[in-house]
Amino acid sequence: MASSLRHFAGLGCFPAAAFSSGSTCFLRRDIPNFCAFVALRPIRPPAAATAPAKPPASPSPPMEEHRQAVPIPCHSGDSPPALSAAAVPKTPLRLGIVGFGNFGQFIAGGVQRQGHAVLAASRSDYSDYCARHDIRFFRSVDALCEEQPDVLLICSSILSTEGVVRAIPFHKLRPDTIVADVLSVKEFPRNLLLEVLPPGFGIICTHPMFGPESGKHGWGKLPFVFDKVRVTEDGVQVAKCDQFLSIFEQEGCRMVEMSCTEHDRYAAGSQFITHTIGRVLSQLNLKSTPINTKGYETLLQLTKNTVSDSFDLYHGLFMYNINATEQLDNLEMAFEKVRQMLSGRLHDFIRKQIVERAAPVPTDPSGKLANGLSSSPAARLL
Amino acid sequence: MASSLRHFAGLGCFPAAAFSSGSTCFLRRDIPNFCAFVALRPIRPPAAATAPAKPPASPSPPMEEHRQAVPIPCHSGDSPPALSAAAVPKTPLRLGIVGFGNFGQFIAGGVQRQGHAVLAASRSDYSDYCARHDIRFFRSVDALCEEQPDVLLICSSILSTEGVVRAIPFHKLRPDTIVADVLSVKEFPRNLLLEVLPPGFGIICTHPMFGPESGKHGWGKLPFVFDKVRVTEDGVQVAKCDQFLSIFEQEGCRMVEMSCTEHDRYAAGSQFITHTIGRVLSQLNLKSTPINTKGYETLLQLTKNTVSDSFDLYHGLFMYNINATEQLDNLEMAFEKVRQMLSGRLHDFIRKQIVERAAPVPTDPSGKLANGLSSSPAARLL
Repeated sequence: MASSLRHFAGLGCFPAAAFSSGSTCFLRRDIPNFCAFVALRPIRPPAAATAPAKPPASPSPPMEEHRQAVPIPCHSGDSPPALSAAAVPKTPLRLGIVGFGNFGQFIAGGVQRQGHAVLAASRSDYSDYCARHDIRFFRSVDALCEEQPDVLLICSSILSTEGVVRAIPFHKLRPDTIVADVLSVKEFPRNLLLEVLPPGFGIICTHPMFGPESGKHGWGKLPFVFDKVRVTEDGVQVAKCDQFLSIFEQEGCRMVEMSCTEHDRYAAGSQFITHTIGRVLSQLNLKSTPINTKGYETLLQLTKNTVSDSFDLYHGLFMYNINATEQLDNLEMAFEKVRQMLSGRLHDFIRKQIVERAAPVPTDPSGKLANGLSSSPAARLL
Repeated sequence: MASSLRHFAGLGCFPAAAFSSGSTCFLRRDIPNFCAFVALRPIRPPAAATAPAKPPASPSPPMEEHRQAVPIPCHSGDSPPALSAAAVPKTPLRLGIVGFGNFGQFIAGGVQRQGHAVLAASRSDYSDYCARHDIRFFRSVDALCEEQPDVLLICSSILSTEGVVRAIPFHKLRPDTIVADVLSVKEFPRNLLLEVLPPGFGIICTHPMFGPESGKHGWGKLPFVFDKVRVTEDGVQVAKCDQFLSIFEQEGCRMVEMSCTEHDRYAAGSQFITHTIGRVLSQLNLKSTPINTKGYETLLQLTKNTVSDSFDLYHGLFMYNINATEQLDNLEMAFEKVRQMLSGRLHDFIRKQIVERAAPVPTDPSGKLANGLSSSPAARLL
């Protein structure tokens, strides 16, 4: 069972293995190491922010550049600095959402409640929905980018994000545009954006840890994780960054500033484990019984919630989080440990029988041993 | 992993395997098949209820008697008959509790609230507790039985119950005494009591599916499972049976009449699975994180509740429920299935790369394929 995946060790984020295995060098052509713990390109000084935007970056640089890359300075996450409301300009943001499915529409609601303008682009036609919600809809990302929004928010799925980002015509955007994502994994989009975006662009990686279901009654106290991966400290970019984050702060979210690396480590041990338990239980096809315990009912609800998400999301949590394979292995070892604890007791049970058969333990008429315990096998398990 | 326990298949209730395996025939001496789906002794006609009580039955009958035994008629559990309140006499019951730990004390509270007298016996000394709660305490089961209570309620642990029951001096009790249990498994005590009790004694197997924690604010709507295994329809035994069950009905429990066999089948697929998930997660030593999802918090709570019970209880749910091993195997197969679904996607990922390396797919300058998808590997997973 273990071996079925062990030879994929490290493939929790597949591209990482693509670089670590000489036998898969052909993958280097078009799979950069998006889950590596280093940036794919050193951060440029603020001055670079004024340089004209360049066309999309060429495919990933060779291995050597990865090895020489400079680590991204990450926030500790222990004491998130308060957002400076004073720094937030009064001009509403023009926020472009790329990928306008359920989640993009859900986020757009909060953006509009905070008085900002929403522009949306998607492969599917949401023109009717947008017309009803005072949102400008574009059938192509190119058309949306020609409007030069202040912030471009990528709301595509984990599996489609790389293709979506690589197809963005950055040269049509202002050179200090902020690009943000909302994926449930964070190192992958951080490294993807650092590689593909022109150097002057701002990068904010976020994970709103709620959705249309858990956030349908408001976003109050729901966790919003963010990492200001690359924001120039002078100019308007930092102000727009705070203005963007204030949307979620004003909606009442619990703002958690945390590095993408920390997020993925925590998420693999919590969110991925939770989804895995739900997926495993869904395979058992559990039913409600006339004698449900409260604990069993929480498992039934967990299973229902898990399968209401797509398997693509679960697979994304696994393949695009470098810590997921280790957590899956830990879960398997924990299950095996419990089986061993149960079988160990059975072995004790049998050994006691064999020994006592060879030398029967004297009992009194009431069936009690000298030690006061019953001579019965079950009682001897005490 | 599977093989570590597979050779124990059928040992979910160990004694059952003891009979099914020729290599363990020595176990037949003192391990009756308490989990078999048949009774160890045919039900006696009501007339037998008037016969004088006999001393404890001798050790389990030979295999042949098991094969010839008559099945216990079980209630369907679909439509539990309402308890006839009219049949309940006004005289309070005198209820003797054998095993007066936390659960015995918890049950005694409800018995007293319904106006019945409680007598208690336990290996540990609870004389002070009983003095404070108007309960007569006895240091031995013999002394308790000399008081001839109407109902003897066994509140010992699963693992100690056989020894406790075999040590009861039935000849000191009235010949129509009702003996009941409260174990979380039901076929085992049903068959144990049918084998060990004198024929005139009544047998009611119950499972209050709550305890001091879940029932601390009252027993309203909490499930109480019961099976009137052997109750003579005439005489006072049936009235005392209804009077005993009315304690839980009057406390507001959801009364679920169900055969012991049905209970164990349902419980293995719900309560045992729940305890197993809790035990497995406890091995992972899960911690709260700054980014807990609601689903993860339910798992943290489930783990906390599970480990608050003893491992002896969990082991009892496994070893004394003939359906538990099958459920453990199902859980293992479900886990393996999920791993296979994840690894299968990774295999697809690699195969696509190999094929496209041999015959590169043409792309336009924007990086889009003829089908409109990005040429990137991640996008090709769509």
